[in-house]
Amino acid sequence: MKSKTLPWIFTASCPSVIGTVDVVTRYMAEAENYIDEIHSFDDRESGLFFIRIEFFPQSDDFSEESFSTTFGPRAAEFGMGWELTEPNHRPKVAIMVSKYDHCLNDLLYRFRTNQLNIDVTVIISNHPDLEPLAKWHDIPYYHLPISAETKLEQEAKVIELIEQYDTELVVLARYMQVLSPSMCQYLDGRAINIHHSLLPGFKGARPYHQAWEKGVKMVGATAHYVNNDLDEGPIISQGIQTVSHALYPEDLIAKGQDVERVTLFNAVKCHVEKRVFLNGKRTVIFGG
Amino acid sequence: MKSKTLPWIFTASCPSVIGTVDVVTRYMAEAENYIDEIHSFDDRESGLFFIRIEFFPQSDDFSEESFSTTFGPRAAEFGMGWELTEPNHRPKVAIMVSKYDHCLNDLLYRFRTNQLNIDVTVIISNHPDLEPLAKWHDIPYYHLPISAETKLEQEAKVIELIEQYDTELVVLARYMQVLSPSMCQYLDGRAINIHHSLLPGFKGARPYHQAWEKGVKMVGATAHYVNNDLDEGPIISQGIQTVSHALYPEDLIAKGQDVERVTLFNAVKCHVEKRVFLNGKRTVIFGG
Amino acid sequence: MKSKTLPWIFTASCPSVIGTVDVVTRYMAEAENYIDEIHSFDDRESGLFFIRIEFFPQSDDFSEESFSTTFGPRAAEFGMGWELTEPNHRPKVAIMVSKYDHCLNDLLYRFRTNQLNIDVTVIISNHPDLEPLAKWHDIPYYHLPISAETKLEQEAKVIELIEQYDTELVVLARYMQVLSPSMCQYLDGRAINIHHSLLPGFKGARPYHQAWEKGVKMVGATAHYVNNDLDEGPIISQGIQTVSHALYPEDLIAKGQDVERVTLFNAVKCHVEKRVFLNGKRTVIFGG
Amino acid sequence: MKSKTLPWIFTASCPSVIGTVDVVTRYMAEAENYIDEIHSFDDRESGLFFIRIEFFPQSDDFSEESFSTTFGPRAAEFGMGWELTEPNHRPKVAIMVSKYDHCLNDLLYRFRTNQLNIDVTVIISNHPDLEPLAKWHDIPYYHLPISAETKLEQEAKVIELIEQYDTELVVLARYMQVLSPSMCQYLDGRAINIHHSLLPGFKGARPYHQAWEKGVKMVGATAHYVNNDLDEGPIISQGIQTVSHALYPEDLIAKGQDVERVTLFNAVKCHVEKRVFLNGKRTVIFGG
Repeated sequence: MKSKTLPWIFTASCPSVIGTVDVVTRYMAEAENYIDEIHSFDDRESGLFFIRIEFFPQSDDFSEESFSTTFGPRAAEFGMGWELTEPNHRPKVAIMVSKYDHCLNDLLYRFRTNQLNIDVTVIISNHPDLEPLAKWHDIPYYHLPISAETKLEQEAKVIELIEQYDTELVVLARYMQVLSPSMCQYLDGRAINIHHSLLPGFKGARPYHQAWEKGVKMVGATAHYVNNDLDEGPIISQGIQTVSHALYPEDLIAKGQDVERVTLFNAVKCHVEKRVFLNGKRTVIFGG
Repeated sequence: MKSKTLPWIFTASCPSVIGTVDVVTRYMAEAENYIDEIHSFDDRESGLFFIRIEFFPQSDDFSEESFSTTFGPRAAEFGMGWELTEPNHRPKVAIMVSKYDHCLNDLLYRFRTNQLNIDVTVIISNHPDLEPLAKWHDIPYYHLPISAETKLEQEAKVIELIEQYDTELVVLARYMQVLSPSMCQYLDGRAINIHHSLLPGFKGARPYHQAWEKGVKMVGATAHYVNNDLDEGPIISQGIQTVSHALYPEDLIAKGQDVERVTLFNAVKCHVEKRVFLNGKRTVIFGG
Repeated sequence: MKSKTLPWIFTASCPSVIGTVDVVTRYMAEAENYIDEIHSFDDRESGLFFIRIEFFPQSDDFSEESFSTTFGPRAAEFGMGWELTEPNHRPKVAIMVSKYDHCLNDLLYRFRTNQLNIDVTVIISNHPDLEPLAKWHDIPYYHLPISAETKLEQEAKVIELIEQYDTELVVLARYMQVLSPSMCQYLDGRAINIHHSLLPGFKGARPYHQAWEKGVKMVGATAHYVNNDLDEGPIISQGIQTVSHALYPEDLIAKGQDVERVTLFNAVKCHVEKRVFLNGKRTVIFGG
Repeated sequence: MKSKTLPWIFTASCPSVIGTVDVVTRYMAEAENYIDEIHSFDDRESGLFFIRIEFFPQSDDFSEESFSTTFGPRAAEFGMGWELTEPNHRPKVAIMVSKYDHCLNDLLYRFRTNQLNIDVTVIISNHPDLEPLAKWHDIPYYHLPISAETKLEQEAKVIELIEQYDTELVVLARYMQVLSPSMCQYLDGRAINIHHSLLPGFKGARPYHQAWEKGVKMVGATAHYVNNDLDEGPIISQGIQTVSHALYPEDLIAKGQDVERVTLFNAVKCHVEKRVFLNGKRTVIFGG
């Protein structure tokens, strides 16, 4: 089984009942799909079952269609939602930014060096500043300035671009605009935001200033899915670093950038590798 | 200068002006006190100066009295509050607990093995459960049960005990009682509490349940001085650990105990080694 | 499925071939064992498959015997070694120590408070110092002093005690004696040792002194299975902490104790929870 | 004292005797230099004294010359080596690379965004691959391929470039060539290298492969000064990350890049901020 080729990924979720694992693994064996790794988990509070499998098809008959045709009906009996992700799937990603470039620079670096299996197809900003960085990576950059009056109009254009570029995932890489409710709704479940605090601590504006006021000894960052409730979407990853009395708010802002970019990267990577499952307001993450 | 003897510690604070360092170090040189380590810091927001010095007296004339007589007047010119701590000073510590024993067990272990240079002279609890642990360490244990009706009366007895045992520092090692305002005032500046969350996140009761509800990926603990404002005293130390979706609130409670005890130990150690300075609602900590 | 009862644990390993997962999960479904969590992993270098399952039997017919009778033959077809661990299984543990008590104190605390699901039945030492600690926990303590001349003889007595107390796991909690080859062989696979460095760095004696000489900025500890090759057994867990120039070797020794005890605890916990699998000279650990 | 301007930095070292601190701080007071922060440390093993001061000159007469003229003779009495660094000093840095670009990309990003107060004036490589990255940052790139035959000749050209660009610090940012003894000697004390292991563990080639073989649970990186003894120069900073059984050597290589770049950045930052002092084979680091 010495193989460096990437596996197919199967993910599924449904209510917890006996046989959920068996319906999947039995099918995999019958279809001659070699399983390399399984994680499953039943949340006894939500009563939901989650599973993620990496596998290598061994049969020439394997195809997404045949999988769907043969496995689909079995899954239906369990009310199981499932998804198959091919080894070389690179989701099309739109990145939204303002002026801070540390997260953008990090994502583009990892995209360029294949540390992130994504295809950054478009960058959208309410400021022109980061266009040169986009240019160097040969990625289209759209400057859509936003004022209170133009917000809805500009958000409509953002949505147009997201559609036009066939976007699978939107990453808000320090996009410093409060999204309208309709925009939040549009992005629900398909956008990841990075907030510069350990949510739910220091919600809202200027979290590093809030943290400094409180004299905390650790500051952090939180990557979460966007939903209707600002800064309240399901958390995917968090990171922290220790800070001392000698750091002023502007130092925290500077120092926090490293945690922000790593935390956002971790979240995007988990999402792309299909490790993240929604579980009510919480998430299940099968670590890599 | 090869010496394993412990140093004297000098600490001081005053408004930031030119000459604050010089008035101290010049005196030290004149008095033949060998300085092993200095940390100083000026906070440009509060306009305060802080200094901590470890030194070894070289002169036979050295004594606390002579230090005070000769240095005192110079310090007064700067409005400088200062303190001298002898090498073998072991502050008398009263520990207050309820039923959880992880913090108490840890503090007693470190007291017994001289990792903490303290003298635990009395343990006070609103429950009888931890008396055997106290007994094994030969430390008097007072059981003062508290109800809504008896709170003030019992707190008066606690204060009596604190006085009777000449207590320099009170440690609330998971003492699960809300202190009355008068008790808070009494303890202000001389008591350290451990709270089981990364304050100011998850203030109040059942922080691990709150954290679980939010689906956070990290939980923590905060050691802080007690002041009038519950869970708002100046922070001394914080600790965190990562948690996964597979942990329920009761697991977080269990897992959090390790962070709580280490965080509390760190705070007590910093306090005893005179590394902590109050700076308004914040603290300055000169790391070891 | 709301249950706080502990699950049964099933663990198994065999060569990687198609059907390894299916043979297990199909049986579990047929036998009405509700699976709460699965981890499986195939190591493509060693060509071995590893699986760990937590499950709750739903059928009244469930018993270890019936499991063995019905599943055993199926496993045999895959050359699969497997093990079933009951929910309340508390392995009998013998702890060996010398004079340092930080690891012993930690293990006994966690044993006493049920953080570790073990039964510490005997403590064996080449020094008398830690007997009071054993006494307080009501655990028999055997003092077997060792000199170069008496080593083999005394080791024979140790083995006798291990047998007499029906020991399932031996923990070397800073037992400062080099074991003889025959003793190593006896303990192979059923003893965990804590070494006070990040192995394979600083093997052998006085690792903190070695680390200080090199001016490293981090020191650590390694818990590993005992095997024939001193300090070379398969690693189970490692821990680190940062250190500064201001720490002398004796400070590293003191500071390292916290990492040592946490690292050893983590290893024992993983072992007891059946999360550790031998994979040649390496280990597979299914995280909790 | 509310000032966001950067301070002057004074650093010094000499044998430990009484008065070392006083000679500095008394001068500072007399010369009206406002001290913002002091760290001093006496190493009782090496018998050396180290001090770092941040200060803001308050007198119009302040100049490097006047400082030198008036303080110099006092320092000479203590055999004190000292250095004054102006607030806006940006050392000229030459970066040497091969094909891996993660460290280079990180350093250039931080240079471009002023997180590192340096001036990257030239990039030298034995491969042409990273020229586009240099170009985008408008930094001259020299491709000097090296073979066993041409090593000394090419190293001479490297030295020429280092001189030509007035280089104060050379950073080996994953430069995958063993330096000749003469090159090591030339770089002694003014070059920082990043090694991809927790030195002294896994010295030499392919450290991630070595680490994988041993089944370690943590891998790391070490930034150190270059000296004659390959991989043995004084350590400045180290970083680690946990790894699991599921990672193969190629995964460790990929995952390790994050620790390498952060560890190298930390070392360069400490060096540039004059926080690092040589102390025999070890270093003293006054943290920020």
